[in-house]
Amino acid sequence: MAIEAREIVNAYALRNFCAEVFQKMGVSEEDSRITADILVLADLRGVNSHGVARLKRYVDGLKNGVMLAQPDEKVVKETKTTAVIEAGSGLGQPVSKRAMQKAIDKANDIGIAFVTVRNSNHYGIAGYYSMMALDQDMIGISMTNTEVLVVPTFGKDALLGTNPISVAIPAAQERPYVLDMATSVVPRGKIEVYNRLEKPLPLGWVTDTKGNPSTDAGEILENFESRAGGGLLPLGGAGEYLSGHKGYGMMLLVEMLTGILSGSAFADKVYPKDDDGNPLPANLGHFFGAMRIDYFRDLDEFKADMDTLIRKLKNSNKSEGQSRIYIHGEKEFEKADKYRKEGIPLHPKVAKNLKQIADELDVEYKL
Amino acid sequence: MAIEAREIVNAYALRNFCAEVFQKMGVSEEDSRITADILVLADLRGVNSHGVARLKRYVDGLKNGVMLAQPDEKVVKETKTTAVIEAGSGLGQPVSKRAMQKAIDKANDIGIAFVTVRNSNHYGIAGYYSMMALDQDMIGISMTNTEVLVVPTFGKDALLGTNPISVAIPAAQERPYVLDMATSVVPRGKIEVYNRLEKPLPLGWVTDTKGNPSTDAGEILENFESRAGGGLLPLGGAGEYLSGHKGYGMMLLVEMLTGILSGSAFADKVYPKDDDGNPLPANLGHFFGAMRIDYFRDLDEFKADMDTLIRKLKNSNKSEGQSRIYIHGEKEFEKADKYRKEGIPLHPKVAKNLKQIADELDVEYKL
Repeated sequence: MAIEAREIVNAYALRNFCAEVFQKMGVSEEDSRITADILVLADLRGVNSHGVARLKRYVDGLKNGVMLAQPDEKVVKETKTTAVIEAGSGLGQPVSKRAMQKAIDKANDIGIAFVTVRNSNHYGIAGYYSMMALDQDMIGISMTNTEVLVVPTFGKDALLGTNPISVAIPAAQERPYVLDMATSVVPRGKIEVYNRLEKPLPLGWVTDTKGNPSTDAGEILENFESRAGGGLLPLGGAGEYLSGHKGYGMMLLVEMLTGILSGSAFADKVYPKDDDGNPLPANLGHFFGAMRIDYFRDLDEFKADMDTLIRKLKNSNKSEGQSRIYIHGEKEFEKADKYRKEGIPLHPKVAKNLKQIADELDVEYKL
Repeated sequence: MAIEAREIVNAYALRNFCAEVFQKMGVSEEDSRITADILVLADLRGVNSHGVARLKRYVDGLKNGVMLAQPDEKVVKETKTTAVIEAGSGLGQPVSKRAMQKAIDKANDIGIAFVTVRNSNHYGIAGYYSMMALDQDMIGISMTNTEVLVVPTFGKDALLGTNPISVAIPAAQERPYVLDMATSVVPRGKIEVYNRLEKPLPLGWVTDTKGNPSTDAGEILENFESRAGGGLLPLGGAGEYLSGHKGYGMMLLVEMLTGILSGSAFADKVYPKDDDGNPLPANLGHFFGAMRIDYFRDLDEFKADMDTLIRKLKNSNKSEGQSRIYIHGEKEFEKADKYRKEGIPLHPKVAKNLKQIADELDVEYKL
C-alpha cells in the first residue's frame, strides 16, 4: 500500500483558518477562536479523531441546525460550589470552556466546584478542560456523554457512549498527569483506521449483532450506521472474564454524571432525529470539576510527591522488550512540542476536506 | 475434590462476635461495632476477601502495633468543603466512617465536600462509605490506596495497589448504582482462589518476574511474598493492546487522590517494615466525597431518570447465551438480602480461624 504524502501545516495558521470558518458560519469571534483552539490542540496532541478532521461535521451541524451559531446560553442554577449551564444547542467547546472556568473560579473561592452543561454538542478532547485547572495548581476533571456506540456487559445493543473521563493533576518538575480516556476499549476512530487499512480487528474490541466477538471492522461500522446491534466493548472487553463489567461501570458513571445530573439526554436519546430522519440537536451533557490542592496539604509538598511517584514509575524495571514506562499525557505533550515546532501532519483526505470547506465558504486556505 | 461443608452463621451474631473480639483487643466499644459492621457487610455482599476472613489479620495488626487500638485520631485541616484527618494508625474503618460522615455533613451545608484520611489502615470494602451517601440522596465517593501488587503498563515491578474506586448514586424505584471495583483486572483474592483449586489463571490477569504473561497462580503468589517482580495487571491487561494503560491510569489517579493528596505513603512506601523486617503501621490514605444532587437538578427528576436508564439497560437485548444484564451493586444487594435471611456461609477455614481467635481471646463463639 502506498503511503500518501502528508501535508505539514502550521498550528497557528490552522487555528486561524478554523476560526475564520466558524465566523463565516455565524459564530461569534470569541467562540470561533475557542472552538478552533480546542480542535487544533487535539491535532497537536496527536488525537486526530478529535481535531480538524471533524471541521466538516461542525460546519454541517451549523448548517442543518444541530448546532446553533448564536445559542441562548445561560446559567440556569448556581450555588457557591455548583452550577448548571444550558448550552442552547451551541457548539460544545465555548460553553465547556466557560463552564470549566466557572468551576475554577468557584473552587478558587471555596475549594471545590462542579459545573454541569446540558443541551450541548460534541466538545472535542476532554483533556482541554481538565488541563485548564493546571495553571491554577488545581486538579481538573472533565467528562461527557457521547454518541451511542458501546454495548453493556452481557448485552448486544449499543446503548452507551464511549464516555471519556479526563483528570489533570499538576506536578513540580515533571509534566502533569493528564488522564484522558474513553471508557470503551478503543474509540470508534480506531475501528475506522483498521477498516481503511483492511486489517482484521484484535479480538476483544467489538461485538457483532449477536453480541459475539468480531474482527470485521467494516461490518461493525455498517452495524453502527444501521443500528443493527453490536458495537464497541467497554474497557475490560466482553463479559466478566477480564472484568469488562468494570469498564461498563465507569461508562455508566460518566453517563449519570453528564447526561442525567445535567438534565440532558442520556443513553440512546442523545443525537435524536425527527420523524423524517433529520438530525436534531445532540443534547449532550458535560461535567466539569476543579479542586484546590492547598485545601488539603501544602502545594509544594504535594507537587514534590507527584514528582517522586512519577519518577519512581518511569525509572522502574521494564517488562521484556519494553524500553519505557509512560505517565498519562506524556506522549501527547511530546507530540505537541514536536508539532508546534515542525508543523502538524494532515492526512491527505483531511487536507482535501479543509480545502473544500475553504472553497465553499470563501475562506483563504493558506497553511 | 471434596467440597467441604460451609458453616452457616447469623449475620447479627457474627457482627457481635467480631465487635467483642475488637473490644478484647482494646478498641473502644463504638469503633469495635463500626469495624465489625463493615467486615460483616462485606460477607453479606459476597465479598468474602474483605469480610471476617480478615479478622485474624486485624487481630495480629492490633497485637504487633501496625494498628493502634486507641489511636490519636484528629482533624488536621478543615474548610467548608474539605477536611484532612490524621488516623493515627488506628483501624481503617472507624476513621473512614467518620470521614465520610464529615463529607456528607459538609456537603449538606455547601453542596460538595471531599475528606482525605492519612496514616490509616485497611478500610474494608470501599462501597460501605460511598453507600452512606445514599440515605441522604447524595452521590458518594470512596477510594483508597492498598498493598502494592500491580505492575504499571510496560513495567515488571509491582509498584501500585489494586486501588479501588467506589461511587454510589441513588435511583427511585430501582436499586441504587453502586460501583465498587479494584482498578486491576482482578484482586489478589482471585489468584488465591485459583491457587487453592490448582487451576491455571486466565491469560491477561498477571505477569511473571520478567513482565511476561503467566498462568501460574502459585508462582505469582510467591513472587508477591519475595517481591521478586511481576504482579497483577491493571484493568485492560498487559501493554496497550486492550488499553491496559487506561486501567493503569485509573489506578494512578486513585494513588494520587488517596496517598498523595492526604499526605500518606504512596506506591511501594505503604506497609513499610523496620530494619529487622517487622511490619510498621501501613500509612494508607483514603479519599471520600459527597455531593448533593438537588444542587444540580430536581431530585425526583434525577431519580426518575436513573430508573429510566437502569431499566433501559436491563431490558435491552442480551448477547448470545446470556440471560441478564446487571447494574453495578445489584448482585451484591441480592446476596445480602439472601444472606441476611438465610445466614452467611463461612468457608471451613475461616470458621476454624474465628474459633481459634475466640479461644485465644476468651470470647464466646456461638453463631
